[in-house]
Amino acid sequence: MANVQSALEWLESNEDAAFQRLCDWLRIPSVSTDPEFNAETRRAAEWAKDHLEASGLDVRLVETGAPDAPGHPIVLAESPGSGDGPHILFYGHYDVQPPDPIEGWRTGPFDPVIESVEGTSDRKVVARGACDDKGQVASFLEALRAWKEAGAEPAGGVRFTVLLEGEEESGSVNLEHFLETHAQNLSKCDVCVISDTAMLAPGRPAITYGVRGIAYTEVTLHASDQDLHSGSWGGKVPNPISELTKVLSKLWDGDRKIQIPGFYAAVREIEPVERTNWENLGVDAAASLRGIGLGPEANVGEAGYSFLEREWGRPTAEINGIWGGYTGAGAKTVIPTHASAKVSFRLVADQDPDDIRDKFFAWLESNTPEGCRWETTDLHGGPPATVSTDSEMLSTAASAIEKAAGVKPELIKTGGSIPVAGLLKSRLGLETIFMGFGLETDRVHSPNEEFRLSCFSLGARSHIMFIDALRG
Amino acid sequence: MANVQSALEWLESNEDAAFQRLCDWLRIPSVSTDPEFNAETRRAAEWAKDHLEASGLDVRLVETGAPDAPGHPIVLAESPGSGDGPHILFYGHYDVQPPDPIEGWRTGPFDPVIESVEGTSDRKVVARGACDDKGQVASFLEALRAWKEAGAEPAGGVRFTVLLEGEEESGSVNLEHFLETHAQNLSKCDVCVISDTAMLAPGRPAITYGVRGIAYTEVTLHASDQDLHSGSWGGKVPNPISELTKVLSKLWDGDRKIQIPGFYAAVREIEPVERTNWENLGVDAAASLRGIGLGPEANVGEAGYSFLEREWGRPTAEINGIWGGYTGAGAKTVIPTHASAKVSFRLVADQDPDDIRDKFFAWLESNTPEGCRWETTDLHGGPPATVSTDSEMLSTAASAIEKAAGVKPELIKTGGSIPVAGLLKSRLGLETIFMGFGLETDRVHSPNEEFRLSCFSLGARSHIMFIDALRG
Repeated sequence: MANVQSALEWLESNEDAAFQRLCDWLRIPSVSTDPEFNAETRRAAEWAKDHLEASGLDVRLVETGAPDAPGHPIVLAESPGSGDGPHILFYGHYDVQPPDPIEGWRTGPFDPVIESVEGTSDRKVVARGACDDKGQVASFLEALRAWKEAGAEPAGGVRFTVLLEGEEESGSVNLEHFLETHAQNLSKCDVCVISDTAMLAPGRPAITYGVRGIAYTEVTLHASDQDLHSGSWGGKVPNPISELTKVLSKLWDGDRKIQIPGFYAAVREIEPVERTNWENLGVDAAASLRGIGLGPEANVGEAGYSFLEREWGRPTAEINGIWGGYTGAGAKTVIPTHASAKVSFRLVADQDPDDIRDKFFAWLESNTPEGCRWETTDLHGGPPATVSTDSEMLSTAASAIEKAAGVKPELIKTGGSIPVAGLLKSRLGLETIFMGFGLETDRVHSPNEEFRLSCFSLGARSHIMFIDALRG
Repeated sequence: MANVQSALEWLESNEDAAFQRLCDWLRIPSVSTDPEFNAETRRAAEWAKDHLEASGLDVRLVETGAPDAPGHPIVLAESPGSGDGPHILFYGHYDVQPPDPIEGWRTGPFDPVIESVEGTSDRKVVARGACDDKGQVASFLEALRAWKEAGAEPAGGVRFTVLLEGEEESGSVNLEHFLETHAQNLSKCDVCVISDTAMLAPGRPAITYGVRGIAYTEVTLHASDQDLHSGSWGGKVPNPISELTKVLSKLWDGDRKIQIPGFYAAVREIEPVERTNWENLGVDAAASLRGIGLGPEANVGEAGYSFLEREWGRPTAEINGIWGGYTGAGAKTVIPTHASAKVSFRLVADQDPDDIRDKFFAWLESNTPEGCRWETTDLHGGPPATVSTDSEMLSTAASAIEKAAGVKPELIKTGGSIPVAGLLKSRLGLETIFMGFGLETDRVHSPNEEFRLSCFSLGARSHIMFIDALRG
């Protein structure tokens, strides 16, 4: 009879091979937001299917989207386990962010390299998706493999449904429909487990009990129907770039409070006990800022809230991209026809992405510069999610992480968004446990994204321990 | 003995061939601001050299720049004329603006097509540089040719120095040095003639007596040393795009007065007589706006000044380009390391481009967002120029245009910048006469730039008449 010791031993002696398997996955550029990578994105799904099948699960790719707007497939796997024990839904995603800006990478974004971590005996893999989310999902895949190799039934005999999405980085546009059409099967699950969040710091594992929501838009301000010479027309007509900067700059007041009417109406205030708990975590804002090349004076944000509170408990507005006019080398004296920006909002409970998007677009309309008009696009949205911190399943997960790490995990939140958690709660009544093993310094969404071998290994051990606890 | 009638007749019977010759020149993509086009830019200079030589002038290409920063050659031609008559410096440029945005063109920017002008019997050529400045220069080149073909001495026996620059659209960075090193020869000239401005309207030819100056800069705001995930970092640190929009939006107050301290200090107020004269020109702002797809509500600019006054008599600040973060398809939740803008100022007498640039950069520094730093670049500058309206030479030019057009030319200004005029005045004490034949609707610097055959022909006839008057 296989036991947890055999699974852990197999993992330990196969760690390098497992890390190399992750590299194979990272070599597939599954950039879901860019149609140019559609074939590669599918190949990344097939890679995961093969991996899960090798661990004895029943796997299929479920197509998504409509014939005129095909989506990326969902990898759906079931362990053949039966019995009265808990049924776990594991969610992850196999797609990755675009590698832009390419020039920021030391090595090719899809050409993973393993480097040592300065000042430690640890190593890390550098590639797009290294942490988010291939590396974290791979730690779970290797846990399944470890139980299989140790001679156990697939997934150690625990009932698992594994759902790997290919559109997390492009707005999960087909996920809601999938959840609705698979509601009957998915609602058999007792809880969802997601590995797509971070630890508090190296050596300080964590369980995340809240994620922010998001509303992501693209807005374009149009003026004349032709590019204009700024000599002949400068000072006579609206310049859409200048006007766009004027409007967007009004998103915040001097205290960095967002000025869209009703924006804060549904915001749940941070509870006093949370403020105290977070304060006690001893997060060093200055050290965090140093890590990204900034001094303590860069600790700026909404007035009245601390560094951590602004990430975990408060909504934000960000301009993620802006473009208009001449952006090449040298000078071109043009007043262009239009200027555009990507504007996103991170949301907290109980803000609703659709409501915020509507309020933003209405605010833009009410601030339309004379002689101009708006074109607005909703790129995607996802609700915030806060989960219960006193469930039995969360205690089981915390205990598994403690056995794997040797220390109790912290209870934290994250400023990131994992829209599926909100959907699972609202559509299926399912709670989520975020067991994440990334680090704040992993450069997620940036050039030179990385994932440490120690994190990968801790993730796999934690999942092995969690499965062991569930085997009953 | 050749007379003006023979020259005019030759022109009339060779108009189509002359327009086709212009098309040959327009096929050469002499985009001076982009080094990729360096070879083509030189080819455009050689084309002009051949044309001038065929009219009997002595021509050479004068190299510019330094060995480590080579410039585009200046075409320098001299007519062999002698005697006591006036010596004219003709200035033009053979380089063109970049064709961006390429997608705005109905046909290739360097693939000139001749189309009919709707509602008239006129025709027009559509291509980058059609008007600015190849078309206008070509009208002068064909006037020289007409005198030659009519059997006269080169340039009708008038002493001409022809200076065609290849860097007008990229800041004339080597022109000042050229003027200094050729000061002795150039100071023999009595006046400069430039064909690079517009008429008031079709059928309303004009002489321009003032151009605006320019200061053109590129500014970049830097924050973190790596791209950040807007989930983990949004609300905690400065976002350089958001901060850049906040700073640039403060360039203007609600009356669109520029807020840089001292910006208006050297500005000469528009004289009451000018206000009256301009008002009497009967320019229809609503019609101008309709021509670029805008309604009358788009007549916006500095409070207290009319549509025409804002172009001809007031300085402006414009953002000609802006870029930062993710600008591709779909969504990317990034806070980038930096964001950039091209910011230019149109200047009026007696503003100084270097002074305005210094004041702008100082204003940026004093508005540096917390945790950020600026990188600033001066791309180029040129002084404003206002010329005397009561000189004998200007009367001669006006009379030549009247003979060619059948109506007296209007005395107007332009919002564009022709830096050479200010340089000639300050370095050589030379006045300039702007005899321009473009139209406001020529889409100069925009896709589908055009030049009408009637304008081309009027320009050539006017130059023939001007030369005739100078033959004495």
